[in-house]
Amino acid sequence: MATIFTRIVNGEIPSYKVAESDKFYAFLDINPLAQGHTLVIPKQETDYIFDIEDKEYQELFLFAKRVAAAIKKAIPCKRVGVAVLGMEVPHAHIHLVPLQSEGDMDFRKAKLSLTPDTFKEIAEKISLSFE
Amino acid sequence: MATIFTRIVNGEIPSYKVAESDKFYAFLDINPLAQGHTLVIPKQETDYIFDIEDKEYQELFLFAKRVAAAIKKAIPCKRVGVAVLGMEVPHAHIHLVPLQSEGDMDFRKAKLSLTPDTFKEIAEKISLSFE
Repeated sequence: MATIFTRIVNGEIPSYKVAESDKFYAFLDINPLAQGHTLVIPKQETDYIFDIEDKEYQELFLFAKRVAAAIKKAIPCKRVGVAVLGMEVPHAHIHLVPLQSEGDMDFRKAKLSLTPDTFKEIAEKISLSFE
Repeated sequence: MATIFTRIVNGEIPSYKVAESDKFYAFLDINPLAQGHTLVIPKQETDYIFDIEDKEYQELFLFAKRVAAAIKKAIPCKRVGVAVLGMEVPHAHIHLVPLQSEGDMDFRKAKLSLTPDTFKEIAEKISLSFE
């Protein structure tokens, strides 16, 4: 069965899209640690990120770098943090989280609750900064 | 002034080395979240990881992939997690953390206290698995 992320890529489940290429897709995490918290995924399903073959793996991280630059432009933050945990959804994904301090990257803290309008606004802002 | 990580690369400060190439260096975090918690750095100092130019940035993540494979072989864990926070030392570094559950990647939890002998043993084990 397709992962929830594959269904997002296919448009079967809606998402707040931030950026897209032929191979990769970036969208807002709907349980964000901070405004602008984005997930970057390969369109092709692989569970464990380190199982992705070298070339696509490197392209994925380069795509994430471009998304991080867009987040940094669009969202006030000191820098954009990176995390790959991958225990929940069996489809490799890179978290990009705007950080003010190291504590902002704590996955056990309460997630922000944002309205659909706020999500849409954030996604558009990042998307416009994507190059 | 050279960062503490540059001084580690230069051997001015001792470290538990796990792997090394001409451009990159990997060594155990001495305040580990889990046994085998490793830091991967470029030898050339750059503060913010996304400021590293594309080619070296991609090589850095490829080197980290090889180190992660060695950690996975040497240390019993479900997978190796990735984190880049970078608010403390102004020299880009990738955390590779052996994970049993997502909660293992909580930078605010108490760090493990290990003896020099244990650090040495872990570093050697990972190093022997590095390809």
